[in-house]
Amino acid sequence: MTLKPSWVASANAADHPFPLNNLAYGVFSRGDDDPRCGVAIGDMILDMRAAEQNGVIDLGDTALFELPFWNDLMEEGPAVWAALRNRLTALLAQDAPERDRVEPLLVPMDGSEMHMPFMVSEFTDFYASKNHATNIGTMFRGKDNALPPNWLHIPIGYNGRASTVVVSGTPIRRPHGQSKAPDADAPTFGPSRRLDIELEMGAIVGTGSEMGHPVTVAEADAMIFGYVLLNDWSARDIQPWEYQPLGPFQAKAFATSISPWIVTRAALEPFRTDTPPRERELLPYLQEPGPMLYDIDLSVSLAPENGSATVICETNYDQMYYSAAQQLAHHASSGCAMSPGDLLGSGTISGPEKHQLGSLQELTWGGKEPIPLADGQSRTFLEDGDTVTLSGVARGDGFCIGFGTCTGTILPALPDPFSR
Amino acid sequence: MTLKPSWVASANAADHPFPLNNLAYGVFSRGDDDPRCGVAIGDMILDMRAAEQNGVIDLGDTALFELPFWNDLMEEGPAVWAALRNRLTALLAQDAPERDRVEPLLVPMDGSEMHMPFMVSEFTDFYASKNHATNIGTMFRGKDNALPPNWLHIPIGYNGRASTVVVSGTPIRRPHGQSKAPDADAPTFGPSRRLDIELEMGAIVGTGSEMGHPVTVAEADAMIFGYVLLNDWSARDIQPWEYQPLGPFQAKAFATSISPWIVTRAALEPFRTDTPPRERELLPYLQEPGPMLYDIDLSVSLAPENGSATVICETNYDQMYYSAAQQLAHHASSGCAMSPGDLLGSGTISGPEKHQLGSLQELTWGGKEPIPLADGQSRTFLEDGDTVTLSGVARGDGFCIGFGTCTGTILPALPDPFSR
Repeated sequence: MTLKPSWVASANAADHPFPLNNLAYGVFSRGDDDPRCGVAIGDMILDMRAAEQNGVIDLGDTALFELPFWNDLMEEGPAVWAALRNRLTALLAQDAPERDRVEPLLVPMDGSEMHMPFMVSEFTDFYASKNHATNIGTMFRGKDNALPPNWLHIPIGYNGRASTVVVSGTPIRRPHGQSKAPDADAPTFGPSRRLDIELEMGAIVGTGSEMGHPVTVAEADAMIFGYVLLNDWSARDIQPWEYQPLGPFQAKAFATSISPWIVTRAALEPFRTDTPPRERELLPYLQEPGPMLYDIDLSVSLAPENGSATVICETNYDQMYYSAAQQLAHHASSGCAMSPGDLLGSGTISGPEKHQLGSLQELTWGGKEPIPLADGQSRTFLEDGDTVTLSGVARGDGFCIGFGTCTGTILPALPDPFSR
Repeated sequence: MTLKPSWVASANAADHPFPLNNLAYGVFSRGDDDPRCGVAIGDMILDMRAAEQNGVIDLGDTALFELPFWNDLMEEGPAVWAALRNRLTALLAQDAPERDRVEPLLVPMDGSEMHMPFMVSEFTDFYASKNHATNIGTMFRGKDNALPPNWLHIPIGYNGRASTVVVSGTPIRRPHGQSKAPDADAPTFGPSRRLDIELEMGAIVGTGSEMGHPVTVAEADAMIFGYVLLNDWSARDIQPWEYQPLGPFQAKAFATSISPWIVTRAALEPFRTDTPPRERELLPYLQEPGPMLYDIDLSVSLAPENGSATVICETNYDQMYYSAAQQLAHHASSGCAMSPGDLLGSGTISGPEKHQLGSLQELTWGGKEPIPLADGQSRTFLEDGDTVTLSGVARGDGFCIGFGTCTGTILPALPDPFSR
């Protein structure tokens, strides 16, 4: 596939994240306006509420863009998703006959504020990069118990907290929590001193499944509406003390950031790639009928307050051992009902090389090996004022499918978190 | 406190679960009618939608009972909760002057179908009965590692799945899942053969908390709207294979049943009781300023298909080491935002005696000691057609505060779960 030219000139640059091939879905506002759904095209946003109100977009009897969330479209299912994508492509293509109707509906991305693109129904986080699981396992449980015996058979995941999934740009308050030093007799409660990131992709479930009815991997793939970048902020001092025996809880519950633009599965089709060879044969319900991972370059940068940004990680989504489709099929395997708006975090994406590690825990080997930053600084874990930015892009022949960025700046812990 | 007499005669029996002292909140329908909110009074239900429409109930400018859920009332906060309870008490008391306006709004409980009383925002399950934690720990990790070192310091919990919380009476499909026999080389996928129950109480969060802001135990207590019975169905063969290192997932995700009537915190006030003495001093953020547990008798019965029911467990909610208020305070301690409609499962409630154990896993010691049932039957784990019924009641001086029952019948596993 090559670039699809658009009459929105900025969309035609070979390195622009939002060409006509992409058509990413977000929610924006300008000034005092209400937030509303919009589609990214070059440096502009197509106002979907206005487009639906004036009839440029008409997907049936029900208004799908009255609310500032993409959930209503998700619930319509894949046929309507395809119809919308076809219609948008026709409206924005180089020689679109309806250009005059559409042009007044475009607003500049510059100066627009982005909001959560969808209502998160439930959030599940996985643990599906083998390099990450091995690294974390080595640090938490020792080299001999690094990879749990179930890891090569199950896309391991746990339910996370949906109420604290926030859009890129939302400041992240350093959390308080319980932790215990290895040699201490009792735990203490205070601000986390080992605040970390996790570079992940988030898959958004678009169509649900019925309680009591598992889905195949192929069905799961078709249920996925799109993908976002996801930063699963983590408190590495709270986590080891609390996580046995029932898994991470408050170490992960305080915040998860996502990028504001949903890149649809349709836009990513040219970038499908296979998961790595299986080291143990998977049970049939988890076997993929085709390539369901994507070739997406990912990076993380870290900038101290008033300082320059340093790229601290460059990796690729193709490092996952399990695809989102496999994770979703496993999630529904017991008959767990899946809902439109469910968000599945891939788990931290780490490659085999040092510069490909997706968390500070791994990059600094548990805080023992500080990483250098620009301006002579260094880091083990995050300091107040640090800004972390995830970026993602799939690179095609003369075009890109970009995710934009997912950023967050660390605010100091509340001095007295219980005062009002 | 003694019985508050009502002009609804059935509500005045000393052993009736729904006297005027209770005023439990549910959602009901009759025949082809839409589900709507109702209040239990004796053998009758007060139709709240009708009461609001004709002005008998008027809590302000906004209609609170248009939707068949109690969430809209929850969001109004404790002052409105108290105003409604006062108004209902005045309307239904022995010599209520407005009896003639209210009587036409009553419908018989008999013949009414009960629905989910609220929309579950997120579901969190805890592990806060010391007897249960010790028993399960012994079976899963051995006697020496039974109680994890954090257990006396943290009300341990994990995020569960809200999409499969169902109302009492909903049939429970036996789930499929991955399990591995201890001596097997690889796991298999098939119907669970160790299907279990967990006797729990569910606390319903009525008012939310802001992201980034923990709450005190006293604030947490005030945020709780009410309580229900909760059966956390569990697949004990899926659980041990999947739960390391990130906690239970599909073993718990397929179904959770709750009783249909929300018993408000206000109704339970006379039954407050202290948690047991602390074995280790808790960190200040978890210390209770007063009694926040409740004296509620609980029981479980099991009836085979076409067979008689046998009571297999009798215990009390006062067996918990941590109260729901402590659990909620811990849940928000990292700044995790809590939402109206969040459901917190207490964790299995087991007493120290054999007949006080709240799961078959404990009652049969991992399936090794079958328990006798009526009609010469016995059980290790649940069989198809079995009906499990939880019951709960707080016993006052000449009156009861009843929870009614929480039941579920096991359907056979789907022969081919992936066929359509």
